[in-house]
Amino acid sequence: MNKPKNQTLDPQDWESMRELGHQMIDDLIDYWKGIREEKIWRPIPEEIKQRLDDSIPETGMDPEAVYEEFKKTIFPYNKGNVHPRFFAWIQGTGTPMGTFADLLASGMNPNTTIGEHSAMYVDRQVVNWCKELMGFPSSASGILVSGGSMANITALTVARNAFGEGKIREKGLLENGQQLILYCSTETHACIQKAAEILGIGSQHVRKIPVNDAYEMRADLLQKQIEQDLELGLCPFAIVGTAGTVNTGAIDPLDDLFKISRQYNLWFHVDGAYGALAKLDPVYSDRLKAIEEADSLAFDLHKWMYVPYEVGCTLIRDAKKHRDAFANTPNYLLQESRGLSGGLDSINHYGFELSRGFKALKIWMSLKEHGREKYAQMIAQNNRQAEYLTQLVLENPQLELMAPTSMSITCFRMSPPNFSEEQIRDLNQEILVRLQEEGIASPSSTILNGKYTIRIANVNQRSQFEDMDLLVREVIRIGKEIIG
Amino acid sequence: MNKPKNQTLDPQDWESMRELGHQMIDDLIDYWKGIREEKIWRPIPEEIKQRLDDSIPETGMDPEAVYEEFKKTIFPYNKGNVHPRFFAWIQGTGTPMGTFADLLASGMNPNTTIGEHSAMYVDRQVVNWCKELMGFPSSASGILVSGGSMANITALTVARNAFGEGKIREKGLLENGQQLILYCSTETHACIQKAAEILGIGSQHVRKIPVNDAYEMRADLLQKQIEQDLELGLCPFAIVGTAGTVNTGAIDPLDDLFKISRQYNLWFHVDGAYGALAKLDPVYSDRLKAIEEADSLAFDLHKWMYVPYEVGCTLIRDAKKHRDAFANTPNYLLQESRGLSGGLDSINHYGFELSRGFKALKIWMSLKEHGREKYAQMIAQNNRQAEYLTQLVLENPQLELMAPTSMSITCFRMSPPNFSEEQIRDLNQEILVRLQEEGIASPSSTILNGKYTIRIANVNQRSQFEDMDLLVREVIRIGKEIIG
Ligand SMILES: Cc1ncc(COP(=O)(O)O)c(C=O)c1O
Ligand SMILES: Cc1ncc(COP(=O)(O)O)c(C=O)c1O
Repeated sequence: MNKPKNQTLDPQDWESMRELGHQMIDDLIDYWKGIREEKIWRPIPEEIKQRLDDSIPETGMDPEAVYEEFKKTIFPYNKGNVHPRFFAWIQGTGTPMGTFADLLASGMNPNTTIGEHSAMYVDRQVVNWCKELMGFPSSASGILVSGGSMANITALTVARNAFGEGKIREKGLLENGQQLILYCSTETHACIQKAAEILGIGSQHVRKIPVNDAYEMRADLLQKQIEQDLELGLCPFAIVGTAGTVNTGAIDPLDDLFKISRQYNLWFHVDGAYGALAKLDPVYSDRLKAIEEADSLAFDLHKWMYVPYEVGCTLIRDAKKHRDAFANTPNYLLQESRGLSGGLDSINHYGFELSRGFKALKIWMSLKEHGREKYAQMIAQNNRQAEYLTQLVLENPQLELMAPTSMSITCFRMSPPNFSEEQIRDLNQEILVRLQEEGIASPSSTILNGKYTIRIANVNQRSQFEDMDLLVREVIRIGKEIIG
Repeated sequence: MNKPKNQTLDPQDWESMRELGHQMIDDLIDYWKGIREEKIWRPIPEEIKQRLDDSIPETGMDPEAVYEEFKKTIFPYNKGNVHPRFFAWIQGTGTPMGTFADLLASGMNPNTTIGEHSAMYVDRQVVNWCKELMGFPSSASGILVSGGSMANITALTVARNAFGEGKIREKGLLENGQQLILYCSTETHACIQKAAEILGIGSQHVRKIPVNDAYEMRADLLQKQIEQDLELGLCPFAIVGTAGTVNTGAIDPLDDLFKISRQYNLWFHVDGAYGALAKLDPVYSDRLKAIEEADSLAFDLHKWMYVPYEVGCTLIRDAKKHRDAFANTPNYLLQESRGLSGGLDSINHYGFELSRGFKALKIWMSLKEHGREKYAQMIAQNNRQAEYLTQLVLENPQLELMAPTSMSITCFRMSPPNFSEEQIRDLNQEILVRLQEEGIASPSSTILNGKYTIRIANVNQRSQFEDMDLLVREVIRIGKEIIG
C-alpha cells in the first residue's frame, strides 16, 4: 500500500494563526473593557439571520475570513450577560481570567475522565475546594458537571439508586415495585421535575408543597403530605430543599426539612444552583448552614462564581453511594498500574458522562487569582445591591415591590394607580422590552401569585450600585413615556 | 443606605491582562507547532501532585503568577491527545481554530438556551449542518450535548417517553406498568447500559445480543430474543445499533436491525458516537446508509470532527416526540414577542440542560475553515492509516492481528512463539506502558474474547502514515528489550 500525502487540520501558516489569536485577544479585551458603554442588546437584522441559516459549507476559507464573518454575524448580537446591567434569568458574567482558562483548557484538550495526567488532579482539587466552600466533609465525593440541571439530576440519580435495598439500578423501577415520591415546593426549579421524569419516577409523583408568603416551603404541609403518602402505601424517598429559588431567591426552611428527612429516613437534597454560594455572605451563612447536613447538594459555578459557561457541581455526602450509582468498568477502560492508564479513579464512575473537558481549570485559575475572600465580598455585594434596589423601590410610590427580597433577586414593577392587573401587565411587559431594545438593561419577568413582575436577578460581577439608580430611573422614564 | 465602594473581578490593569492573553496564545501556538517533537506523556512528580492537593486559596495572586503556576504544575503533564501518536480510547485531537472558537465562545459567554441573540441561531444552524452530514431530513430535530454518553441517553429518553401511549413522563415506569426491554450487543458501549439504569429500566432489562467473529451484532439472535421476551409478556421498546464499536470499530448490521425494528414496532437508535462520521468516507458510506433511517442517532464532534471537548449531538427523526419528551415552560422562562426574551424555541425543550454554553461556535468555525470536503478526506485518511497499520501487522510475523480492522481501530499485539496467554498479556501490558513512559506513543488496551490486546484508535488529525511505521518499529523494539 502506498502512503498518500499526509493531511492535517493544522494551519498552513502558524505565524498568521498566531497573529489571528492575538487579534482575538485584543478584540475580547477591548470588548470587556468597554462593555459598560455598549448597548446591552441589539436586534439581529434579517439578513444576518438568513446568513445564519445557510447550509453546510462544502469548501473552506481562510481563518482570517472565518473570523471576519464571526465579527460581522455573531459577535455584535451577543446575549449580553457579560454586561453590567444584565439581570435576566440567573446568568453569570464570566471574567477575563475565566475565559483565558477556557482557552488553555481547550488548547490542552485533555479528556478529563480517566488516566494519569494533570487535569485529573486539578479536577479532584477543585471538587475538594467545592467541598470546602460548602462545608461538606472531606470524605464526601463530588463531580463537576455542565450546570445546575445536571447537578440536580446527578444527585437525584444517586438518591434513587441508594433507596431501599439499592437494587433499582439493576432491577429498574417496575420490578423494584415501590412507588417513589419526591418532595419539593411549588417554587422549586423546573429541572427537579425534569429529573423525576427522566429517572422514571414520573411528574405525577413529584409533590409540590405550597409555600408561605415569602415563597418558602411550608414544612408543616410537607410533613402532612408525607404522612398521607405513607398511608397510601407509597414510598417517599427524597426531599428537595431550595437554597435560593429561581423566582425570588427564597430559602426553604432547610433545618426543618433536614429534620423531617431524618424522621422519615428520606434523602435530603439541596438545590443551591443559584443560592448555595450565598453561604459566603455572613448575612446568609446562618440560614444556609443546614446545607452542610444535606445528603447531596447541587450548585452552579457559572452563576455566582462568575466563571464562564458551563460548570456546576454535585456533592454527595456518602461517597460510596455516589460511586455505587454509576461505576462500572468495561474492558476498554481498563486501568494499568503505571503510565497514562494509571492514576485516579475514573470520573465516569461518578456521573453520566464519559468524555469530559477540562472545566475544572477555570475554577482553579479563578480561585487562585482572587481567593475565597474576594468571592465572599462579591457575592455579598450583589446581595447589598439587591437590598439597595429594594430600598429605591420602596421609596418610590410609582413602584411596587412584588416579593420580599432574598439574596440578590428583586421583583418589582411600575403600578400606576387605577390600572387593572392586565394594564399593569402590559405596561411592565412593554417597559421590559424597551429597556432591552434601547440597550439599557436586561431584566427578565416572572409571574408571582398570578401577577406579572419585572425580575432583577443579580449574579453580575460588573454591576455597580449606581446601576440600580439608573435602572429605577429608566423604568420610570419609559413607563411614563408609555403611559404618555 | 450608603453605597459601598464597587468591586469587580475584572482586571485592575487591562493592558497587562492583554499581554498575558498574548503570552498564552504564543505558548499554545508554540506547543501545537512543536508537539510532534514533544514526549507524548510524562509522569507527574510527587511534589507537583502535592501542590495539586493544596486546600482552597484564601487570598488572590497576580494573574501572571497564576499563569506561571499553571505552566509549572499543569501544562507539562498533559494527557497527550493533542499529540500525533495518541491512539488511546477514542479521543479527538482538537485544532487551533477549534480552540480559538472556544476562546471566543467563553469570552462572549452567552447562555445558549433561550433568548434572541446570535448564539441561538448559530446553534440551530450547526444542528442543521449535523442533519445534513448524517442525511437526516430537515424536519428532524437535534441538540448539541456534552458528548456521546449524553447524546445516547438523551435519545433513549425520547424513545422511552414516546413508547406506547406516551404517558411514562407523567406516570413513571411503575404506574405505567410495562417492563421495557432494550436491545444492544455485547460490544455496545457501556453508556447504553448506564442510560438504561438512569432511565429506570434497569440493567437486567438490557439484552446484550452476542456478536459474530467480526464483533457485529447477530441479527438472528436479536430476533429470537425479541420473540422470547414478547412471549414472556415483556415490552421490547428499542434497539441500539452501533456504527463503530468502541473496541474494534465494528458496524452492526444496521439494515437488518432497522428491518427488525419496523417488524416489531421498536425505536431504532444508532450509537454513532465514534463511527457515524465515517459516513463521509466513501468506503464506509454504504454500510452506514441505514443511519438515515434511524429514529435517533448519537454522534460525537469531539471525536472524529476533531473539535475540542466537549460536544456531541443527538438527532431525532420525529421532532414532536423530541419536544414532547422534555418541554415545559415555567413562569420565569416566559417568552416575549420582542426583545431579548423573544426568539427561537428554547433549547431546554429538547434535552436535560437549561444553561448551556456556546459549544456550537467551534463546529461553526471549524466547518467554515475547512468545509465538509476536507473532513471527509481527514476521516478517510484515518481509515487508510488503520488499513496501512493492519498491513504492517500482517506482514510482521512477530505481531498478531486481534480483530478485523474496521474504520480506524486496529487491535494487535506482539505474540512470541511458545508464550502462554498470560505471558503475552504481561509482555504487551509492559510494551504499552513503556511506549507511554518513554513518551513515544499512547495506545490503550482492551480484552477481546478473553485476550489482552493493544488497541490503536485513531481519530487524530495530526497522525501521519509514518507514525504507523514508527509505532510498529517501537513495539517490536520494546518487546524485544523486555524479552531480553
Ligand atoms: C434554583 C435553580 N435550580 C436549578 C437551576 C438550573 O441550573 P442550570 O441553568 O445551570 O441548569 C437554576 C437556574 O437558574 C436555578 O435557579
Ligand atoms: C461507540 C461509543 N459510544 C459512546 C461513547 C461515549 O462517548 P463520550 O465519551 O463522548 O461520552 C463512545 C466513546 O468512546 C463510543 O465509542
